[in-house]
Amino acid sequence: MSIGGLRVGLCGVGTVGLATVKILRDQSAMLAARCSQTVSITHVGARREVPHQDYAAARISRDVMDVARDPNVDVLVELIGGTTVARDLIKLAIEQGKHVVTANKALIAEHGNELILLAEQAGVQLRFEAAVAGGIPVIKTLREAMAANDVSEVAGIINGTGNFILTEMTTKGRSYEDVLAEAQALGYAEADPTFDVDGTDAAHKLVILASLAFGLPLDAEAPVKQGIQSITPEDLEFAASMGYRVKHLGIARRQGDRVEMRVHPTLIPEEKQLANVDGVLNAVMIKGDAVGELVLVGPGAGGAATASAVCADLADIARTAAGSGPALGVPIAQLKSQALVPAEDIESEWYVRLAASDCAGVMSDITQVLANHDVSIESLLQNPPREDQTTVSIVLLTQVASASVMTAVMQEITALTEVEKEFTLLRVEAFDQ
Amino acid sequence: MSIGGLRVGLCGVGTVGLATVKILRDQSAMLAARCSQTVSITHVGARREVPHQDYAAARISRDVMDVARDPNVDVLVELIGGTTVARDLIKLAIEQGKHVVTANKALIAEHGNELILLAEQAGVQLRFEAAVAGGIPVIKTLREAMAANDVSEVAGIINGTGNFILTEMTTKGRSYEDVLAEAQALGYAEADPTFDVDGTDAAHKLVILASLAFGLPLDAEAPVKQGIQSITPEDLEFAASMGYRVKHLGIARRQGDRVEMRVHPTLIPEEKQLANVDGVLNAVMIKGDAVGELVLVGPGAGGAATASAVCADLADIARTAAGSGPALGVPIAQLKSQALVPAEDIESEWYVRLAASDCAGVMSDITQVLANHDVSIESLLQNPPREDQTTVSIVLLTQVASASVMTAVMQEITALTEVEKEFTLLRVEAFDQ
Repeated sequence: MSIGGLRVGLCGVGTVGLATVKILRDQSAMLAARCSQTVSITHVGARREVPHQDYAAARISRDVMDVARDPNVDVLVELIGGTTVARDLIKLAIEQGKHVVTANKALIAEHGNELILLAEQAGVQLRFEAAVAGGIPVIKTLREAMAANDVSEVAGIINGTGNFILTEMTTKGRSYEDVLAEAQALGYAEADPTFDVDGTDAAHKLVILASLAFGLPLDAEAPVKQGIQSITPEDLEFAASMGYRVKHLGIARRQGDRVEMRVHPTLIPEEKQLANVDGVLNAVMIKGDAVGELVLVGPGAGGAATASAVCADLADIARTAAGSGPALGVPIAQLKSQALVPAEDIESEWYVRLAASDCAGVMSDITQVLANHDVSIESLLQNPPREDQTTVSIVLLTQVASASVMTAVMQEITALTEVEKEFTLLRVEAFDQ
Repeated sequence: MSIGGLRVGLCGVGTVGLATVKILRDQSAMLAARCSQTVSITHVGARREVPHQDYAAARISRDVMDVARDPNVDVLVELIGGTTVARDLIKLAIEQGKHVVTANKALIAEHGNELILLAEQAGVQLRFEAAVAGGIPVIKTLREAMAANDVSEVAGIINGTGNFILTEMTTKGRSYEDVLAEAQALGYAEADPTFDVDGTDAAHKLVILASLAFGLPLDAEAPVKQGIQSITPEDLEFAASMGYRVKHLGIARRQGDRVEMRVHPTLIPEEKQLANVDGVLNAVMIKGDAVGELVLVGPGAGGAATASAVCADLADIARTAAGSGPALGVPIAQLKSQALVPAEDIESEWYVRLAASDCAGVMSDITQVLANHDVSIESLLQNPPREDQTTVSIVLLTQVASASVMTAVMQEITALTEVEKEFTLLRVEAFDQ
């Protein structure tokens, strides 16, 4: 570490970048006391014009690569996002012998194996607490606090935007499109919200959690992925009437010598803790053989909360100058792939919503199909047709079945003449906490 | 660190000690991968006879001081409890240049300033994650994950035994004495459960959390302290009927340039997260200016969960050989005392239960006393006398008032001829999460 304290080069001055600048400026005395050295920004890389007064004595460059090359930078903070320039930037910083802190979940999920290996070889740290669950220290908890645990499951609400949308739809009966527009206006969702609503963002985060939990190499394509776009207020109402809340969950679970990884909207019994984590809050549940079950709840988005995690990584680097161990818990070379449970084999309970003409016999036909496939019905709800409709809504909760069985079931049910082709099929997770 | 990996000397082989032995034995390969070196027990100190087969090649001594003197020990794990021998043992280990891990909250709360200073001077680490909230990594979260946050409040359920007792009383209507006996039989409560039920154990933990949160020297006497011994099933029922649960909380909160610290049974609105943390679970809520509000929930007691925290400390020592920063966030010399809010000045809402003869005018007299002291009534409940009683129960919830005002109020109310001398007075915390 340099005599002049830890010198930070910050690339990207969006919401999180500006919040990071503010913390490092306002809390400089506290951080110096906690790190036994100062932590200060010496260089800012920003592709757009930035107001100089925010950066005190820092050098400012339009080319972020200049920050990675600056000998007066000990740690590069990558907050520009994306997986192209960001990747090159981090590689260059590592080549130059600099530690790296990033909040970039897509980059870590897709290129983390490569980047972390480069960091290991260069003897520098690569840290990314802010990449998962915003201000919640879930990476530190898995990597350090649970170091002595065999982890069997990680599950949680890990996309704040998606949870905000579902919460608004649930509590106010608003439509998906309406809430999404508000989320964008509030700055929770990106101008292109695709990754937030189609499950990609949650999948990236789950991949990182699963790697830490189970010692797997990062594999961005591993999770089975379903987003929240097709959720209707009607489904949320039916779920509520049966005592459930719908949350978008990421779940990584050991199944014998295989691992299942999936992100999807999920019905959760309303009395469970995860069912009551609302708005932009995130929550992560971790099961370990020694500790049992931990649940961490906190802000999953927002500039200050995310910057809190960025600064915690900087503080860790400042405190543990000699290194604080492998980024993913064990060195990259010791990560071991495990077979994934194929999407069609993943089992759970299910929620099914169908529309059918209100004639005698349809319920019998539907339940017969389920019985033929050995799928037990947990509960069943039939609603009278609404004024403007000629069909009834039929809602079923099933006991445990695999996705492939349910696909076959739904094919046969929707082939019935009384049943419409459109249906909703969602997983149900009761958890056992 | 020695070539032969991290060599652990374990003193105390009760529930937590045996669970620690089991983890270090069963997870040795995983820990070696995560720490880049082996972590193994080379010496066990146990004042009573212990079965040899559990400790493989470890040396066994009846005098725990032999462990502290053993040159083949790098870290001493103190699990003997108490504040006399344990203190001498840790001082000796530090003198001998050994790191120390302990789960001893009483020792850290009472002698932590001295012991941590000795460790700093000797250049060794003193760690105590297991001392607070069992398996929940709350010390790591405050010390590391929130390093860049100005913390304004820490509050939580930090005594598993007390929470088990209150939960059983609430959900099953059992008496305090009955549940306490079961807690002892289950091994949750000590043979002498005084510290668990009179608030001392929670106060010790709160003192440690407050020190980490606010940079205060440890002061075991700082918290205002009330236990759970006087809680009756009747109070729990009244609280429930008004939409509240009773939990034993520790609260440390900044109030301007002063700090309030208190442990006491507390009414919490039933929809709040802390109200729904039951059994031996612990939960800690932390508010920081950057991250907002974090809530950590997990097992607050139990051998394996506590041993998980002990082993995490060992893993941290193994991973960060060169030191991982000050035990309390900043060096002992930089801790700064702050004035405490005196007990009588601590404000909150209140729950009051009175017994009064059922005659006209009593309610008017009681409410007049409250009005005279400017205490507003939030809600009021009067129950008809039970068959075997000649008095009615009157339950009041007040708006915010200080303890001194409520003391004066209760003196005047119980001086009324229609009101009995016995009453219950509990604090109410709505939190704002």
